[in-house]
Amino acid sequence: MSNSENSQTPIGNFGKFGLLDHLTRNVSIKNKGTVKGIGDDSAVIDTSGELSLVSTDLLLEGIHFNLIYTPLRHLGYKTVIRAISDIYAMNGVPGQILIGLGLSSKFSVEKVTELYEGILLACRKYNVDLAGGDITSSLTGLTLSVTATGTVEREKLGNRDGAGPNDLICVTGNFGAAFMGLQILERERKLFSRDSGFKPDFAGFEYIIERQLKPEFPANVVRHLKEADIRPTAMIDVSDGLASDLIHVCRLSGTGCRIWYEKIPIDLETSKAAEEFQMDPATPALNGGEDFELLFTVPVDYADKIRDIPGVSLIGHMTNADLGYKLINEEGSEITLKAQGWEMSEG
Amino acid sequence: MSNSENSQTPIGNFGKFGLLDHLTRNVSIKNKGTVKGIGDDSAVIDTSGELSLVSTDLLLEGIHFNLIYTPLRHLGYKTVIRAISDIYAMNGVPGQILIGLGLSSKFSVEKVTELYEGILLACRKYNVDLAGGDITSSLTGLTLSVTATGTVEREKLGNRDGAGPNDLICVTGNFGAAFMGLQILERERKLFSRDSGFKPDFAGFEYIIERQLKPEFPANVVRHLKEADIRPTAMIDVSDGLASDLIHVCRLSGTGCRIWYEKIPIDLETSKAAEEFQMDPATPALNGGEDFELLFTVPVDYADKIRDIPGVSLIGHMTNADLGYKLINEEGSEITLKAQGWEMSEG
Repeated sequence: MSNSENSQTPIGNFGKFGLLDHLTRNVSIKNKGTVKGIGDDSAVIDTSGELSLVSTDLLLEGIHFNLIYTPLRHLGYKTVIRAISDIYAMNGVPGQILIGLGLSSKFSVEKVTELYEGILLACRKYNVDLAGGDITSSLTGLTLSVTATGTVEREKLGNRDGAGPNDLICVTGNFGAAFMGLQILERERKLFSRDSGFKPDFAGFEYIIERQLKPEFPANVVRHLKEADIRPTAMIDVSDGLASDLIHVCRLSGTGCRIWYEKIPIDLETSKAAEEFQMDPATPALNGGEDFELLFTVPVDYADKIRDIPGVSLIGHMTNADLGYKLINEEGSEITLKAQGWEMSEG
Repeated sequence: MSNSENSQTPIGNFGKFGLLDHLTRNVSIKNKGTVKGIGDDSAVIDTSGELSLVSTDLLLEGIHFNLIYTPLRHLGYKTVIRAISDIYAMNGVPGQILIGLGLSSKFSVEKVTELYEGILLACRKYNVDLAGGDITSSLTGLTLSVTATGTVEREKLGNRDGAGPNDLICVTGNFGAAFMGLQILERERKLFSRDSGFKPDFAGFEYIIERQLKPEFPANVVRHLKEADIRPTAMIDVSDGLASDLIHVCRLSGTGCRIWYEKIPIDLETSKAAEEFQMDPATPALNGGEDFELLFTVPVDYADKIRDIPGVSLIGHMTNADLGYKLINEEGSEITLKAQGWEMSEG
């Protein structure tokens, strides 16, 4: 997991402020909206008259990530992606993140530094300032809370409830990759736990494993939409699964939907992995989750404009509510979409 | 801990969105700045041209609270106080909070509802909107993350680094109460754990126990300062201990300080409890933490104006940095103040 298992520095060597100082000593403020970052009671943000967006997520070891196969740098990176995807989903621009960190004594300063390297790498790439946070000890493992803030012009605010019947359903990227990447990682972990001489083999699945461990967000699509002056009627980031998030938009908008299976973008590696697990690729694509793609709807006259945006696919259209939530499969049959249930794990 | 141990509803009975809906079904938006609250990718806040403030805290079971003697309603209430105190400490007005919740399966819907009742009670009292959050399962116990947002007029922003030599050091309320309340609770818990027939006795310590379990924040002082048109040169909420937070302001401002022991406000119950534990009351007052009081500095000409504000005490003054951080005791001797170390617990 770490390149430097030798000579690890116990966290207790630093005081609370000392550890925060150490982790954030190279943090510089990039966005002019960040009036004050780390080191005061709260971050101070100048939204210059735009609306302020705030979102928070909680990530727990053993629930959201397994450190056996998750490098801490990647975990830090993904934490930022998860946070800013909520801001993009409001048609906004992320500006700042704040990180809350709960650490058990198994984490050395070096390991926490790796986590922060990943956080700061994503911050640089997505032009976001690390602007504050909290750090505390934990009895069990790693707890991460992340708050993202951003801004949006008043008249461009994205909604989840504005889709109308006949609006086109558009998505970015492809679906099910992160879920199948996780299945591959879990399969190899189980084989390794039975036989420590076993060499995990990820050949041919590099892309979907990267989608699981170090995803990106299609920020450029949000920019393209703005440049093309397209304001989606509804917008959501797909993190709970395509079916679940689409149904969520339908419910709030009071519509039904029809999507075509053959139009749902699925990467070849995702299909190949699904085959190895004897799954229909539609299952991870519709219900996998953690895709960090964008789903949005636009009026039907925007079809040509949308086709011009790279990385966007049209997968169907909204309908009147009484027509329900339907997937049309390759044989032309209608299958009712279901939002995946959410299960509390035991603990 | 709960009034309704019978007929508890497992959390698994609700889906993720179902549980959030259930917990927040009575939440109504009060502040006109809250454009969108719960139910979208992020909260949307209109700061009307003022600066936006954002702060986040992480609270973990076994580290920050013990559910043996902490009613969940009180824990919810205190979580809000902790969050908004960071906004007040910037001379701002809190407007919204977002709650992240990690729940193990030992928590029933009824128990989580109690937690939310406390959160919403504090929100009503301090005129704050619950505007979003996250909810997830946890392997071990209760994890709470809380993000507070607020606004401050550009020219009234509070700083930690603006104190000058000779500025007066002002504090609200009294110190050490929450810490001694915790000692009493812990003492009774230990006695109870040895003999389950033991009846915990809190008589005479009601006030300091309330300060530990269900604290308030002196929001009225922030209002009084505004009405009296006093802009503190530096400001911090005292949560890590009076000595530690005062030294923090001194370091950032490049000053030293002198405070008088006899001027530090200490409640009679705090002194009485300290006596029972054979402690000098100065110890909890200076190093106890969780006071949720405000410390601020003002130029010396404001002395009379400050004395007019109820609930504020003058405890000393800033000095040049080379004079260090000094407490003058009752005999007139100088004692060097130390910031309490921060220890990572084992885990």
